[in-house]
Amino acid sequence: MEAFALKKALDNVRATTPLVHNITNYVTVNDCANALLAIGASPIMSDEPADVEDIQTICDGLVLNIGTLNERTIAGMFAAGERAGALGHPIVLDPVGAGASALRTQTAGNLLDKLDMSVVRGNMSEVKALAGAAAATRGVDANPNDAVTEENLAESAAFVRVLAAKTNAIVAVTGAIDVVADAERAFAVRNGTPLMGRITGAGCMLSCLVAAFVAANPDAPLEATTAAVTAMGLAGQTAQKRMGGFDGNGSFRTYVLDALYRMDGEALEAGAQVEELA
Amino acid sequence: MEAFALKKALDNVRATTPLVHNITNYVTVNDCANALLAIGASPIMSDEPADVEDIQTICDGLVLNIGTLNERTIAGMFAAGERAGALGHPIVLDPVGAGASALRTQTAGNLLDKLDMSVVRGNMSEVKALAGAAAATRGVDANPNDAVTEENLAESAAFVRVLAAKTNAIVAVTGAIDVVADAERAFAVRNGTPLMGRITGAGCMLSCLVAAFVAANPDAPLEATTAAVTAMGLAGQTAQKRMGGFDGNGSFRTYVLDALYRMDGEALEAGAQVEELA
Amino acid sequence: MEAFALKKALDNVRATTPLVHNITNYVTVNDCANALLAIGASPIMSDEPADVEDIQTICDGLVLNIGTLNERTIAGMFAAGERAGALGHPIVLDPVGAGASALRTQTAGNLLDKLDMSVVRGNMSEVKALAGAAAATRGVDANPNDAVTEENLAESAAFVRVLAAKTNAIVAVTGAIDVVADAERAFAVRNGTPLMGRITGAGCMLSCLVAAFVAANPDAPLEATTAAVTAMGLAGQTAQKRMGGFDGNGSFRTYVLDALYRMDGEALEAGAQVEELA
Repeated sequence: MEAFALKKALDNVRATTPLVHNITNYVTVNDCANALLAIGASPIMSDEPADVEDIQTICDGLVLNIGTLNERTIAGMFAAGERAGALGHPIVLDPVGAGASALRTQTAGNLLDKLDMSVVRGNMSEVKALAGAAAATRGVDANPNDAVTEENLAESAAFVRVLAAKTNAIVAVTGAIDVVADAERAFAVRNGTPLMGRITGAGCMLSCLVAAFVAANPDAPLEATTAAVTAMGLAGQTAQKRMGGFDGNGSFRTYVLDALYRMDGEALEAGAQVEELA
Repeated sequence: MEAFALKKALDNVRATTPLVHNITNYVTVNDCANALLAIGASPIMSDEPADVEDIQTICDGLVLNIGTLNERTIAGMFAAGERAGALGHPIVLDPVGAGASALRTQTAGNLLDKLDMSVVRGNMSEVKALAGAAAATRGVDANPNDAVTEENLAESAAFVRVLAAKTNAIVAVTGAIDVVADAERAFAVRNGTPLMGRITGAGCMLSCLVAAFVAANPDAPLEATTAAVTAMGLAGQTAQKRMGGFDGNGSFRTYVLDALYRMDGEALEAGAQVEELA
Repeated sequence: MEAFALKKALDNVRATTPLVHNITNYVTVNDCANALLAIGASPIMSDEPADVEDIQTICDGLVLNIGTLNERTIAGMFAAGERAGALGHPIVLDPVGAGASALRTQTAGNLLDKLDMSVVRGNMSEVKALAGAAAATRGVDANPNDAVTEENLAESAAFVRVLAAKTNAIVAVTGAIDVVADAERAFAVRNGTPLMGRITGAGCMLSCLVAAFVAANPDAPLEATTAAVTAMGLAGQTAQKRMGGFDGNGSFRTYVLDALYRMDGEALEAGAQVEELA
């Protein structure tokens, strides 16, 4: 990435401490809050329709994560999203489990249709479900058949770019290889480790980081999203290197937060495995 | 346990990665998800009545934990449970705080009556409340008067077996000594450590593991439940051995997850303190 | 603190294991439960209006934390609070985000008006919002302009004391310097570390500890509150000393729990930096 330094993207987060409003699932919400604090942002959670507009008004960005959606919080997502749109705040959609139930697929689709979404961040099965493509999710995990590989990378990137054009949002698909694209350009990120799939919340935390990075870098949302994806992957690699003989996913989760906390712009730049696709 | 190896029960979990749907409390839900991932299963949480049937359909088992029940999620429990029953998926009931409030006692009783429950996993005070026996719970902890001891073990096992026969479910009562029984047979498990009572969620995590083990071992649900109880107790012992001079319940929680993550079938078999009662 | 030993306050918690009912946010609820277990108390969470009265009846204290309030749980807070008041159980209000939204400011005010509140524990921006003073909160964090400093300590303490007199509750304002006061007396606590602001939940956990300490020391609620504030700050200092070269806020969170777990009355007394203000 020449035009925009990853270093600057992270430095801007730490310099501005963006306040991110999260309407998210209760499974990983604590990790989401600590991940935002680790990277230098500040979290606030509010999902009550009567509360979300005031909260969004004082924030710099919004995350809508449907991991444990219910009718009340769906209403909160729309109310917060409309306010965010009116204020020009970036909105990140995490369509957890889209494709796994009608309610999830429809809700994610409606949020994407009706709100001014900045970024969609999900796994390939979720993103395919959003795109109306045939997909068989396996709960909240991607179907192995949907994996992005070196062999199908160009094809996958083309698919992501088309969806980005159609939705007018940046689309970030994470997996063994991450693809981040808008209608014009696409990046592949090869940071990360399979261990990320052995903790709950790696994707949720990333969606929060994306909101923080985009809020802190409003003029370069594609690069900011790519930087967030890279930071999360690099944190996973750093955490994995720290694993000792008794450590498992409990320690790994802690180490990921620690790695985000200690990461600075130079370390991000040095560790990044980012490629702009043709 | 001669007829069925504990080793095989755990190996089957890791080989099949059962997808477990959890309707559970928001206190320990993150630990539940990470415990399932640690043991080689996969978690999904969904409690909205309009969502749970689709989600249960793609899953292999269901956990109903009433730790922070509310009217909406109770409706979700029944809807998910009926779908699970229709599909032949195992259902595990964790009657958190039964006996501590009328709503909890009644809800647990109704779930047990109306659904095709495979396993009930609770402490003795909760299980006594379910059985309609006089019981005085102390919040979500067992009343010390209800402790299973070497002295009352035969009597306790007989009580558990009677409840199992009455409910047509396996009943797993955990405490200083764990008792797992169906109408015919009963096992005592002497793994575990009192430190498990100094973290929140040890019981909740175990109920999730039970669902994973039973889903992965459909022909031997009693042995599978016993294996899950043994695995959780052994993880506690492994975690306790790892405790250093500055460690407390924060580290212990992490170490329990790590121990589950690293446990294989041979370690489970070697560390098991399981006795079949006469 | 001459008249009442901090040591005794903590010893009483560990000797009596107070059962604390928490209606709190889903972001930090797991840490709240583990913090109560760490300090020797016992947690239970229940927010359903149909459940909370029975639960409060068997408990020794109540925490009302509005961090992720919704209409259902607000109703639960009033129902639980009225029962607690009727039974003479201490109630602690944590007005998370008061000042940040109308719903939060109004709800916190209503809870304070209508319930027999024992303690209010918040940051200065939240407490100012409760007092109707001009305040601009920054989400769930205090506005830097509201910081208690050595320069404005006397003035800050006077403000806190006036609010305590007006509300007939102990008021504990935490920040760089903590101020704990009733209408008559005020204490400054200089324990703690800025790292507490880099994890989610430090304030929430403290509010739970306050409930445990006040429940276990019913004759000395001001001193008990001061002891809880001191214990939390000291745990943060102990955790900070333990931080190694790879540690960040993930490990710090664990270390805080560990420090609470290992703290005894003598350590609390020895580490306390408490001053009674004139």
